[in-house]
Amino acid sequence: MMVLISYDVAVTSTGGARRLRRIAKECQNYGQRVQYSVFECVVDPGQWARLKHSLETIMDAELDSLRYYYLGKNYRNRVEHVGANPSRDVDDPLII
Amino acid sequence: MMVLISYDVAVTSTGGARRLRRIAKECQNYGQRVQYSVFECVVDPGQWARLKHSLETIMDAELDSLRYYYLGKNYRNRVEHVGANPSRDVDDPLII
Repeated sequence: MMVLISYDVAVTSTGGARRLRRIAKECQNYGQRVQYSVFECVVDPGQWARLKHSLETIMDAELDSLRYYYLGKNYRNRVEHVGANPSRDVDDPLII
Repeated sequence: MMVLISYDVAVTSTGGARRLRRIAKECQNYGQRVQYSVFECVVDPGQWARLKHSLETIMDAELDSLRYYYLGKNYRNRVEHVGANPSRDVDDPLII
């Protein structure tokens, strides 16, 4: 299934940039980074359980939020992109 | 219909913060700001045509991107939120 993951990180907080870097790394095991803090992942239920657990371990739940959208299999008909290249950040190692 | 709008803005570019503020204002006419640059809007086709046009006029297509997810009517079953309050920014006037 496709899961859209949006991560709202307090990047100015201590460790915020590092958390985003770690979240990106986890998500990119299963999909692509389509915007700075938006990831589209294709996972089976077992992979999703593991990924979700990893993300929620990395995040700071007091400061950050994760929002998951379960888009099913007909996902490609549901998305439209406008503007700058969606993959421009995929190869960005986010070394800050 | 429900449209999830994710705006990847180059906030460090000239006018970036202003563009985000304007995008937020447009989106909040039709829904809520659920994360810093993620909005969930409920629109009919005419409203969506107008909103989409407004957003794409405001954005800088060379620097920013907009990503739309058309989530239909069964939207509420598709979303899950973890962490900080999803509405924490809704009342933020984003006056920078």
